[in-house]
Amino acid sequence: MHIFEFQKMMSRLFFHRDYERGVEETYCWLVEELAELGEAIEGNDREAMEKEFADVIAWLASLANIKGIDLERAAIKKYNGKCPKCNQSPCQCTV
Amino acid sequence: MHIFEFQKMMSRLFFHRDYERGVEETYCWLVEELAELGEAIEGNDREAMEKEFADVIAWLASLANIKGIDLERAAIKKYNGKCPKCNQSPCQCTV
Repeated sequence: MHIFEFQKMMSRLFFHRDYERGVEETYCWLVEELAELGEAIEGNDREAMEKEFADVIAWLASLANIKGIDLERAAIKKYNGKCPKCNQSPCQCTV
Repeated sequence: MHIFEFQKMMSRLFFHRDYERGVEETYCWLVEELAELGEAIEGNDREAMEKEFADVIAWLASLANIKGIDLERAAIKKYNGKCPKCNQSPCQCTV
């Protein structure tokens, strides 16, 4: 599934709720989901990790929907097959 | 670009560095990138927001690469066109 399609699906499912909740609270939810991902990683529970990775990308997409940012375009613009710092593939940065 | 392809590209570009850095430090970088996204949103600078959204999804993919998690599969498993809580599209959850 394209990043764009996933973001669109999130919009279909949740935009009415995301828009009502607003940017700040949605950002806080994303922070909370990232904390939960951290806990799942600490516990090294594969199923929990999968769910939390899913939640982080889902809330990231929700936040992008509220701000009207195309996540796929933004991602490809910065990471277009080369390291954005050293311009090499693979990255050859020394720090 | 598929979520899977983006994750693969991150692996090609950065896995040697991600693996060496390890899970904990990569997680910390992701937390830092999310903070930067928060600042970009506060500043309401579209270009900065795009870069930070890109960085968050990039570091999320790097973290998934280290843990051997398929981000696209995880995302689709949990969000398969319906809300995972109320099972409706769009979401009809009341809380």
